[in-house]
Amino acid sequence: MPLRAAVEADLDDIISLIKALAEYEKLLHEVVLKREVMREHLFGPNPAAKVLLAETDDHKVAGFALYFTTFSTFLGRPGIWLEDLFVLPEYRKHGYGKALIQELRRLTDGRVEWAVLDWNEPSIKFYESLGAKRLEGWGTFRWDPAPSAEASSS
Amino acid sequence: MPLRAAVEADLDDIISLIKALAEYEKLLHEVVLKREVMREHLFGPNPAAKVLLAETDDHKVAGFALYFTTFSTFLGRPGIWLEDLFVLPEYRKHGYGKALIQELRRLTDGRVEWAVLDWNEPSIKFYESLGAKRLEGWGTFRWDPAPSAEASSS
Repeated sequence: MPLRAAVEADLDDIISLIKALAEYEKLLHEVVLKREVMREHLFGPNPAAKVLLAETDDHKVAGFALYFTTFSTFLGRPGIWLEDLFVLPEYRKHGYGKALIQELRRLTDGRVEWAVLDWNEPSIKFYESLGAKRLEGWGTFRWDPAPSAEASSS
Repeated sequence: MPLRAAVEADLDDIISLIKALAEYEKLLHEVVLKREVMREHLFGPNPAAKVLLAETDDHKVAGFALYFTTFSTFLGRPGIWLEDLFVLPEYRKHGYGKALIQELRRLTDGRVEWAVLDWNEPSIKFYESLGAKRLEGWGTFRWDPAPSAEASSS
């Protein structure tokens, strides 16, 4: 099960995977990413996130994990936030998702964390089967970008 | 209301603030940070997080915000995760907390996000008064560090 770090030539595949994930999550209307801005933030001089690709034996992209570094003040060290994990439907049940997320665990001695939609029972079962715990007692607050910033990116 | 980026000489103040926040959250038992590891991750060559300090007019530290860069695939751009926001009890109700969190909003054209304990009503009201929205329909999953990593840091 080959995993590899994505390179700039993978950008269009990555964008397709992000859109496929958003469609699965019924959130495609929220995807407003711009290719050039993505390229800069993933493959420019100061990447904000990294991408790991899972490939089939004949080098087709089967899935991806996009992640960035976090920092826990209580632990006093960095961890990983898994922003997106997705395996294309035709490649499921082959262990690609498990290989991707377990690789992230190997990459840090801190926490690995990610968000899951409450209705996404298959994913919740999958994560629980891997020993991950749902964080209880905390909520997430968000400021969305100001309208001016939103407009400049649309 | 002076805000400034923390420097290495502020490390002990920062650690005291983290512990004061943890005590307020009834989570002091979870704080296992090591000073030297913190120093490396906050003030070494590749910082994992940044700290903003709020000071009184006579240069006493009143509070802090510790944050790091995130990345939204749907927006296709970075944002900010506010890991810790805390104002010492004796300096509350003077606008330090508001000044700190609003500064983060100025620092990004992406999302600003943070976690709040469900029982922390004063903070929830404060964040709602600033126009932040609680994210509904999502849960957070976590893998805590493996016991070996935990042991090596304790």
